[in-house]
This record gives sequence, C-alpha cells and structure tokens, in this order.
Amino acid sequence: MYAIVMAGGAGTRLWPLSRRRTPKQLLNLAGDASLLQQTVARLAPLLDPADIFVITSQAHVRATREQLPQLPEGNVLGEPLARNTGVAAALATALAGRDPDEVALVVPADHFVAEGPAYVDALREAARVAERGYLVTLGVTPDGPATGYGYIRVGERFHPSSPAARVDAFTEKPDAATARTMVKSGNHLWNAGIFVWRGYVFRQAVERYQPELAKAMDRVERIGTLPGFQSEIRTVVEALPAIQIDTGLAEPAAAEGHMAVVPLDAGWSDIGSWSALLEALSEAQGKELVASGRHLDRGSHRVLVQGGERLVVTVGLEDVIIVDTPDALLVCAADRAEEIKQVLDEISAATGDQYL
Amino acid sequence: MYAIVMAGGAGTRLWPLSRRRTPKQLLNLAGDASLLQQTVARLAPLLDPADIFVITSQAHVRATREQLPQLPEGNVLGEPLARNTGVAAALATALAGRDPDEVALVVPADHFVAEGPAYVDALREAARVAERGYLVTLGVTPDGPATGYGYIRVGERFHPSSPAARVDAFTEKPDAATARTMVKSGNHLWNAGIFVWRGYVFRQAVERYQPELAKAMDRVERIGTLPGFQSEIRTVVEALPAIQIDTGLAEPAAAEGHMAVVPLDAGWSDIGSWSALLEALSEAQGKELVASGRHLDRGSHRVLVQGGERLVVTVGLEDVIIVDTPDALLVCAADRAEEIKQVLDEISAATGDQYL
Repeated sequence: MYAIVMAGGAGTRLWPLSRRRTPKQLLNLAGDASLLQQTVARLAPLLDPADIFVITSQAHVRATREQLPQLPEGNVLGEPLARNTGVAAALATALAGRDPDEVALVVPADHFVAEGPAYVDALREAARVAERGYLVTLGVTPDGPATGYGYIRVGERFHPSSPAARVDAFTEKPDAATARTMVKSGNHLWNAGIFVWRGYVFRQAVERYQPELAKAMDRVERIGTLPGFQSEIRTVVEALPAIQIDTGLAEPAAAEGHMAVVPLDAGWSDIGSWSALLEALSEAQGKELVASGRHLDRGSHRVLVQGGERLVVTVGLEDVIIVDTPDALLVCAADRAEEIKQVLDEISAATGDQYL
Repeated sequence: MYAIVMAGGAGTRLWPLSRRRTPKQLLNLAGDASLLQQTVARLAPLLDPADIFVITSQAHVRATREQLPQLPEGNVLGEPLARNTGVAAALATALAGRDPDEVALVVPADHFVAEGPAYVDALREAARVAERGYLVTLGVTPDGPATGYGYIRVGERFHPSSPAARVDAFTEKPDAATARTMVKSGNHLWNAGIFVWRGYVFRQAVERYQPELAKAMDRVERIGTLPGFQSEIRTVVEALPAIQIDTGLAEPAAAEGHMAVVPLDAGWSDIGSWSALLEALSEAQGKELVASGRHLDRGSHRVLVQGGERLVVTVGLEDVIIVDTPDALLVCAADRAEEIKQVLDEISAATGDQYL
C-alpha cells in the first residue's frame, strides 16, 4: 500500500495567510504543524515514510521537502502545471512507479481531521474494499445542506458487517433545494475527495473514461526520471485538459457500478473558507473563540483570530474572522468569508501582484 | 488676548494608537495633522503664534515643540505632574505671565472641530462676554442623552442680539434618566471644556473657590523660570490636590451667577472613544466608512479603520472599529469602545507595560 498526497492547492480562499508562495497546505492553520505535515503524520499508522508520495506544484517542491524531511526527496513530485486532481493523481501514479497491484490512498494535503484514528480506520476499511477491485471514496455525513460539496447517493451495502456500500450516483455541487432534499433523504454523503484504489483499477478507469490521460501516463512512465525529464513531462501535461477525479472518473465509474463508499466520521473539514476553519476548530476544541498568537478578548462570540507576531485585542465581536499577517490584515464577517475570491480580484486590480 | 492650549491628556481611551509616549493630542486622528496642530491652526484667525501657550506633561514637551515649530519654545510649558485641568490652567496662567486684563482662551488640545470658522466665531463672542467680567464656557447642543458629559442649564440671555446667556447650573455626568430629561428640556447644552475669561477674573475665582491653588499660583509666579524652577514648581504642584475646572471652579461660580455660556455649533467632538471618532469623522466627511491608510472594503457599514502601513481589507462588517498599529491590533464592536479602559487594565495585568 502507498499514499499519494495531493498538494496542488492554490488556496486563495484563505488569503491573506495563504499566498501564491505559501498555499494552504503549507500553513499551520490548526496547531503547530502545517496541514500537509498533519496529513502525512496521520498516515503513520498505515505507511512507512518511503511509501508516502506527495505531488505538488513545481514551485512548492522545495518548501514541501523542507516540511517533510522524513520522506525520501524523490517522493515529493513536482507537477509542471496544474491540470486538476485527475491529472495530478495520474501523474503521481506514473512517477511513483509502484506495483499496479498495490492499493493507493489518494488524500488531499490541505484538509482538517479532528480524529486521526477514525480517519485511519476508514482508510483501512476502504483499502479492504479497494482490494476487491472497486474505486472507493470516503463519504462524510452532511451537517447541513451545503452547496459547495459533491454529494454521494449511497447504494446497497456489500456486507452487513461493514458500512461500505456501492455508490449509486454523484451529484456535483447542487443547488440549495436539491441539497436540502439530499440531506433530508438520509442516504447522501459529502464527497470528501479522498480516494482509495488499486493501481491497475485506477489505470483501467483512466483508460475507459479519459483515454487521452492514459496515453499521457504511458508517456510519463517511459520518460521516468531520465535527464531532462521535467521539461518532457511539462510538454505531456501541457497538452492535457484539466480533469477532475470526481467528475472525470468517479462519476462515470459510479454510473457503471464500479464505485464504493466508506463513511468517514472523523471531524473532517476541507477548510474551504475561513469560516469553515472557525467551525472545524471550534468543534474540535469545544470553544467559540479560536485564536492563534497573542490574543486578549472581552465578550466576543464565535470569532477566529489567525494571529501573527502582534497582540490582537477583540471586544464585543460576533461571528468575525480576523487574519493578521505582516503586510495585510483581513477583518471579515464570518458569513461572508466566501467572498475572499472576489476581494482578491479587487486587490489584484487595485495593487497588482503585491499582495497575492 | 492669548490662548492656553490644554495638552495634558493621557488618552488611554484611544489605545492602541494612543500610548503613554504618544497621547491623543499628538496623533493624526483626523487628517494629516495632529489634533494639537489642528487646534493651534484653528486659532490662527484670532492670535499670533507668540500668543498661544501650550501646557503639557513634562514628558511630552519635546514632542509638542517638534509639532509646533511656529511657537516660541518657551510657550510650550511643562507640567511636572498631572493634577487635572484646574491646576494646569492655573499653572499655565502663572507661567505665561500675561497682563491680568487680557482675555485667555482655554482650549483642549485633543478635541475635533469640523468647522473651524464657526469655532472661531464662538470664541470671539465668548471673548466679548468675558471682557464684561464673566467666566465663559462654550456649550454644545446635545445630539443624544450622553452620560459622559457635563450638562449646562442655560439661563436668560444677556442681550437679544447675542446667543450668550447666563449659566443657571452645571450637572456633572448625569445618569441616563436625568440626561434624557435634560436633552428633552431643550435648554441644556454639553459642557465642551472650553473656557474664556480675563486673567484677573480667573484669578479671583481661584482665590474664592480654591484658595490653596491661588497660593500655589503666587509661588509659581515668584519662582518664574529662574534656574532650577522646574523642581521647585514640582514641589508646589505635588502638594496640590487634583482640581477640575468644571467642578472646582465653574460649578461654584455658576451658583453665584458668574458663569456665562456661548453656544458652539461647529461639529465638535471630544473624541472620548473610538466610536466618538467614527461618529465625528463620519458626519464631517458624509461617509459611513472612515478609513486612513491603505484600505479596501466589500459591503461594510459604519466602520472605522485607523490604519498604518499595512493593507486592511474589511468584508461585510457592521459597527466595527479597527485600529492597526505595528505591535498591537484592536478590533472592537463600536458600541463597546468605552471598554478600552478595562481592556488596558487586563493587558497591563497580563503583559506589564509593554503595550501601554
């Protein structure tokens, strides 16, 4: 068994802490280690460091290696350019060069998990199902009708002794009404973007649903790490369209009955926004004020302070996010944290690249 | 005529911008000049620089002189220790050594005035009334039942052609019910802490209501600025209790019919808190977002950003104060800005003097 840690995120939604140079997975958002470091540490009960591969943008290979000194250097793979998760997983599979019989755990580097052991248990169960030839995804019980996630319609269980079940269908980011119906139904889970499969099962799916990507995998395997391999791989990847695992592979595979789902109940969050981080940490720590750095409060409720070097004092705030960095400060209503993307467009228009 | 600018404020209520080293009057809170500089500039139509005296704490004499290069050095007077406004005015009067017949304008250094010409007109009118032997105060029309101000009950007018009137009584910082009644009555004004009087009229009032302070004035006049005067003056001032102009002189003088009031309608604010600054600047600028420094907003209402070097981004906030300084950041609900004092106590208890 081995893991492919997907560390390609740009993480603009966590500006101003996340920047082009320091995307989300490299940040200490939840504790003293980065999300990437926590992700790798979480896999320790399952895998040796030599069995953990990380794929990240070429620009972040160095910082990634620095954060993960326990991994062999060659296990941190550089992606010449971003073509979404499907291409990244295929590229990593090809470059890792592992036995196609082995089970691969494909896990995002920038998610938060409150309970590591429960996460490991779910991966173990998923690996058992994957060994039987399924493409397996982990499914999170929705805590509300969020429209930012893909939903999994859970089909029949394989066996009464395991919660693993067939995936009947995927619904990508639904509208609010559809989301409410799905949550009410009780048989839908959020797609957490965590996949488990045998190498050859993945390869077969790629060949069937993304034949162009399969050819690219062939080419990358031939190129390997011979001198000049990076520019050759860039040429291969450049020619590809962006392909997502969810829509490009999992959806058609589910339609043909090849997808399975294992429930994940481990305090998971993809930290898709500052308010998602506030929610996740608040729940994990049992506190309504979540603060890092030097902080003093007087009567605030539901506040996140992502502090730096300075003393941050909050008085009487409710549902506010504060992110303090050396050159930029964000103070944002928690229910409007999704607007950071538009804010970044405005900043870019007003000041160029300086703050990106 | 001459002016005594009272610059003794500690200004803890505007932390973290105001600190021990840089009290409120020395800060650029409303525009490109400090409140002190704006106060002195406002007096230009009335007085030459040589006729403007400033009394400030010994520790701030140097910074005050640097901010006011147009004043003769000797016009910036150092107060050895703070004994409230009555003592400061007496000390400044004694040290200035002006003709007792002259009218003195006693004006706080740290207030905000939106309309300088209206302020000057009120002072001119007050000087005319002062020439007739009254202690004159300026009175501001209340815009609500604030409990943080002294109230002036306005008596009969001296003459139909002037708004100047006798002061019937003072009420120091009333409770909310009393404040509401007074505002409703229509014949109460806020005491703005701006006083105008002839030197000898002030001296007579001091002799009558604060005889100990009168003796101290005698001693200070004798000491003058002979070698070693500073430590001698310190000895004199140390022996005095704290005496406020409002309660120690104006109140008893009003009871005996010696006080007059001239209305001040010039967009005045004493900027007693960050929310008072937001209100004052918001009204003066006709904007609900008041920001200094580099600032970008998306859909906020009634926000003050007192910025520094960094980019400050606000999203979806309502009634929030943000004060950004190099070592400390305050984010505060506007209606709780009064609690800064308690916050400072907590900071002091937790971290000592570092942030004070």
